[in-house]
Amino acid sequence: MVSKMHQLEKLQAKIPAKTALLLSNAGDIRYFSHFEILVPEEREALLLVTRKSATLLHANFSPVKAHARIEAVPGCYPEALKKKLQQIIGRERIQELKIDKNTLFVSEFEAVRELGGLKITGLDRDIVWSLRSVKTADEIASIQKACQIATAALKQVTARLKPGITELEVKQMLEESLRALGSERPAFPTIVAFGEHTALPHHQPTGAQLKKNLPVLTDVGAAYQGYCSDMTRTFWFGNRPAEKFVEVEEVVQAAYQVALEKLGDLGGGGGLSAKDLDWEVRNYIAGQGYGSNFIHTTGHGLGLAIHEQPSLSWLNDTPLQPGMVLTIEPGIYLPGEFGYRHENTVLLGKKVKELT
Amino acid sequence: MVSKMHQLEKLQAKIPAKTALLLSNAGDIRYFSHFEILVPEEREALLLVTRKSATLLHANFSPVKAHARIEAVPGCYPEALKKKLQQIIGRERIQELKIDKNTLFVSEFEAVRELGGLKITGLDRDIVWSLRSVKTADEIASIQKACQIATAALKQVTARLKPGITELEVKQMLEESLRALGSERPAFPTIVAFGEHTALPHHQPTGAQLKKNLPVLTDVGAAYQGYCSDMTRTFWFGNRPAEKFVEVEEVVQAAYQVALEKLGDLGGGGGLSAKDLDWEVRNYIAGQGYGSNFIHTTGHGLGLAIHEQPSLSWLNDTPLQPGMVLTIEPGIYLPGEFGYRHENTVLLGKKVKELT
Repeated sequence: MVSKMHQLEKLQAKIPAKTALLLSNAGDIRYFSHFEILVPEEREALLLVTRKSATLLHANFSPVKAHARIEAVPGCYPEALKKKLQQIIGRERIQELKIDKNTLFVSEFEAVRELGGLKITGLDRDIVWSLRSVKTADEIASIQKACQIATAALKQVTARLKPGITELEVKQMLEESLRALGSERPAFPTIVAFGEHTALPHHQPTGAQLKKNLPVLTDVGAAYQGYCSDMTRTFWFGNRPAEKFVEVEEVVQAAYQVALEKLGDLGGGGGLSAKDLDWEVRNYIAGQGYGSNFIHTTGHGLGLAIHEQPSLSWLNDTPLQPGMVLTIEPGIYLPGEFGYRHENTVLLGKKVKELT
Repeated sequence: MVSKMHQLEKLQAKIPAKTALLLSNAGDIRYFSHFEILVPEEREALLLVTRKSATLLHANFSPVKAHARIEAVPGCYPEALKKKLQQIIGRERIQELKIDKNTLFVSEFEAVRELGGLKITGLDRDIVWSLRSVKTADEIASIQKACQIATAALKQVTARLKPGITELEVKQMLEESLRALGSERPAFPTIVAFGEHTALPHHQPTGAQLKKNLPVLTDVGAAYQGYCSDMTRTFWFGNRPAEKFVEVEEVVQAAYQVALEKLGDLGGGGGLSAKDLDWEVRNYIAGQGYGSNFIHTTGHGLGLAIHEQPSLSWLNDTPLQPGMVLTIEPGIYLPGEFGYRHENTVLLGKKVKELT
């Protein structure tokens, strides 16, 4: 959707003079530098960006892809960060450092705080999301491939469901299919829920066995070239779905259509915001009598991370734009009974396009 | 090796009066609360522990296992943390908060810093590692199972190697075998290297094809009930290993035996420290003329995390103790030629035991 001019240059063009950005979010680092974090719970890299330069600090043995515009420096522990930052400050007369407070560790903060005469402020992440949230053609192709893999995996596994199989076994089968079909990893821990468990949005699979005449919920995503997909299906296992299940299914499916229709208006220059969309869906579900049972947001952006901006939250006034890729996932949860969620990954444009 | 008295109570017994610990390391949280982080790049939980209480703050939809000694509270964003901490401070007259500076985010730090009259200090992680680094019988059983899975997976895949296969394909085969044999996930991104690539300790698999008469290096780990294993093998693919390869192989294998022999002395109350062990191995390799080619530590603890204390670094004077589980992984890397690493997971005790 957007040109292929390098995203790093676009970021640099937005940075004020004499200012450095310290990026510590794994998705940001990969997006701007192509550096891939291998063990997410360890600090493997930090990215320092100014108008004039970009410096990737990486763990000593990390494999680093050559990048024409980025200087790669081994060592990304707090003292190494401080030392490199001091050089950049001297060379480019940096006066202000913007830090990402939601991903920078206290030890790193304390190290850079020791540098005299440097103003440290919080990074407004809009500077990053304004780029990351509108996908390039390559990114869309990767997400679409991830969607196709997840759809195919679910189709393979659904055909093999039978009474007695456990949630954990179905999860294993889904993740095996994902891998066999080309997914690098599950985009997130696959959710499989039977019966009452479907009422818990983030249920984790157990040894519970499938029986005839139960609802089944699967929430599954693939990752392709780093990019995620995310899809939920809820269906009745057996021949005669319960009346309440059918009723709830109709409400959720209609709510999903409400979202698609609103997104279809974007092409006409609708100026729809994330919260507008959420409220459309929320109000529809409330109008059907299930307002208190829709207990999460309508969806979220996704890309290199499974949860990206814009969050389709009732509080988020970010304008929706062509090129954004979002999940749409209305759900109704009846504690102790069952839940129903329907989720697809969609691409915004003149017309909204379901990527699943 | 140690009794099953709950590890949380042991931690609480070590906490000074009127002091709270704010644990933010994913491994610590799982170890003491059994809460499992699902998406490592998101903050899903924080654990507040005092002599008298333990409070798990968790993301809204996280599945939480009931725990008799832990109060679970939904919401773990900075303001929720601040609010809950304020309650605990009032109730237990807390005066000091110890934070884990290497895993607490600046936004969380700033929120708790707003609480008046609270002294905030850095957590000395020895209080945690003194517990986590000595494994219980259950933990050892899980690690051993993870070791057995990785060994079996490597055996299956090695039998299927043939010219033309790529590093990426071998990685896929290994990770498929791991899963089929019961691994929850790869313990880390599997390393497969052919030829010159073996000279890079953390090489990531490429489309490079296997040919006859090349060295092959695989570094693979399984995860079972959350616990990791870690094993490296280097071997010659073909009939006639190069002379230099055989020479390097002999040095590394002998260096590995040096480590095992020193660890065997532990039973006699050797008082060996992590750095003593590292220097024994390092000096041996240096004595064979390859000192500058052994470019990493001799190994590391492992458990819920792939890299735990004690690090077998030349600087770490942590005493080695029965019940610790470590990797031993000497290696020699000849840039542009090849590398050779041999790694097993071992359990320290009266006698050292290879778990692979």
